[in-house]
Amino acid sequence: MRTEDEVLDRIDRARRRKPKVREERITTAHGAGGKASQTLVEAVFVDAFRNALLEPLGDAADLVLGGTRLAMTTDSFVVSPLFFPGGDIGDLAVNGTVNDLAVSGATPAYLSCGFILEEGFEVAELRRIVASMTRAAERAGVSLVTGDTKVVGRNSGDGCYINTTGVGVLPADRALGIHTARPGDAVLVSGPVGDHGTTVMLARGELDIEADLVSDTAPLNGLCARLFDVPGVRAVRDATRGGVATVLNEIARAADVSVVLDESAVPVRDEVRGACELLGIDPLYVACEGRFVAVLDDARADEAVAALRADPLGADATVIGRIGADPPGTVLLNTVFGGTRIADLLVGDPLPRIC
Amino acid sequence: MRTEDEVLDRIDRARRRKPKVREERITTAHGAGGKASQTLVEAVFVDAFRNALLEPLGDAADLVLGGTRLAMTTDSFVVSPLFFPGGDIGDLAVNGTVNDLAVSGATPAYLSCGFILEEGFEVAELRRIVASMTRAAERAGVSLVTGDTKVVGRNSGDGCYINTTGVGVLPADRALGIHTARPGDAVLVSGPVGDHGTTVMLARGELDIEADLVSDTAPLNGLCARLFDVPGVRAVRDATRGGVATVLNEIARAADVSVVLDESAVPVRDEVRGACELLGIDPLYVACEGRFVAVLDDARADEAVAALRADPLGADATVIGRIGADPPGTVLLNTVFGGTRIADLLVGDPLPRIC
Repeated sequence: MRTEDEVLDRIDRARRRKPKVREERITTAHGAGGKASQTLVEAVFVDAFRNALLEPLGDAADLVLGGTRLAMTTDSFVVSPLFFPGGDIGDLAVNGTVNDLAVSGATPAYLSCGFILEEGFEVAELRRIVASMTRAAERAGVSLVTGDTKVVGRNSGDGCYINTTGVGVLPADRALGIHTARPGDAVLVSGPVGDHGTTVMLARGELDIEADLVSDTAPLNGLCARLFDVPGVRAVRDATRGGVATVLNEIARAADVSVVLDESAVPVRDEVRGACELLGIDPLYVACEGRFVAVLDDARADEAVAALRADPLGADATVIGRIGADPPGTVLLNTVFGGTRIADLLVGDPLPRIC
Repeated sequence: MRTEDEVLDRIDRARRRKPKVREERITTAHGAGGKASQTLVEAVFVDAFRNALLEPLGDAADLVLGGTRLAMTTDSFVVSPLFFPGGDIGDLAVNGTVNDLAVSGATPAYLSCGFILEEGFEVAELRRIVASMTRAAERAGVSLVTGDTKVVGRNSGDGCYINTTGVGVLPADRALGIHTARPGDAVLVSGPVGDHGTTVMLARGELDIEADLVSDTAPLNGLCARLFDVPGVRAVRDATRGGVATVLNEIARAADVSVVLDESAVPVRDEVRGACELLGIDPLYVACEGRFVAVLDDARADEAVAALRADPLGADATVIGRIGADPPGTVLLNTVFGGTRIADLLVGDPLPRIC
């Protein structure tokens, strides 16, 4: 368990960097999970909500309530379109919050859901979304226990937005954190990257690309449980907004290490690679909704990969790189062409509203 | 503590009433907290999310996590305008969730916040809102522990929407529930009604009415704690969307009793009464954000009123009626003119987007 001092220290370090929001108005980049988002969070929210429990860089808060250690996390979903191959905003909203709890080491238990509906939204579509949430909750073994519905006028929303907030029990002895990554550790990914973001982008139909692709949206709590049975796991993160490259940058910054990635080892489906090439986007930055990145003791990497591959959701799990020492705070990519380049945080996101 | 059987029974009763959503599209009435909202919740959500913990008629879910009994509640805030006399969307979002926990008998502890920002929203306004949330959290003694920010395009939002979700410890022996109201019980209100809704309506500036009025938005956890020190409290509800009349209708329906209200006893400020008369609205249906309705053993009513009046937030607490037997499910209003009329649930809300 992170001590209060450790967390305060992290907040202090974030403050010493003194991030400033230079824009006077919110842009889509502020919601994209990249540099602009991080600056907004650090400059506006962390500074105001200063307390030892706020986890500006974590997936879930680590709390104690009535003697029980629990994790709590929240996410609003504004994906467009609402329905896409392999899923919809409903299962996305359930899986997203289940996964934030799971990768933080908790056992997801209860979820709330808050709907903001636009006047004129079809009740039949709402029913489809609610049915999808129900199935996703059953699959993940969580209960949707409380809800709220607000309606806004036309052009003050976009059909349906959903907030899900979740809580789950955190084992007393679980001590995860991206700041604990150390040189020599292995970095693995639980499956092919970029399926979700690419699928949603293509589902918008603005591009004349056809691909036989579905979202990877899925609950990762079962897969995380398998991973946590292997000793030596330091940190797990689901690779949502900003994709695998953004998670790796967060790890590099939090632990003051480098991450050395082997580009040829990163599993990317041909359809994703093809679509991303046409879109001019690097799949490493494209959101997944059913994949995680884990950092663990290199001596346990083979054992971890074998454990994950025993589950269909982790069938393509593989080691994609190592933690290094220098330069700290940097992600280095050994490219398929034999060169090395820096995979920095992006300011915004070439694919907005994918979750 | 409500047993699973009791809750399932309530859900079954709700199902037997077989509510049907007749509209094909969402209307503002579905978000107003009245009949249309209840039908939507019962027909679409309760039916799908069928589990013993879902509280279709409660303010918060009553859960057990790792041996701790806790309450969990969620609310999205879409108030327009974002800033109004006496408050803004920020303190409203904190107080609203604090109050849902408090009236359910819990001690509010941790809140999450999820922002949906419209592209172009001013960062300075976001800072004001965040500062207001911080002050509200400090006043209520809760921590904002986890957050999320999404950005949507212009005309897909309205500046800023906020979801807050909260958890708090529920004492093991606390057994509240509007279904436990019984004939002879006293009904009290903690202060003047309708201030918030009227203030927000006037703040829109569409009506040429000036009134020296501020929102009553405030955290009620301290006041609830005073009330719970008095034995014989059966149920507490904060009178938000739909106002006091809607809460009383929910009590009448849940407990299969009548509520007999003395109109002249209901505290309403002159400014609220005047504005509501011009608007053609009954203050009994206008939202408060810092008032609750309580049902308790009549023999303890004086003691309860005295306890509440010892707190500035409860200075005008007073008994406004009694629980009766007949006709079950009905709210009867003894008017100031000596007549009696039924104060039924409204289908929608004459004041949309007040929270």
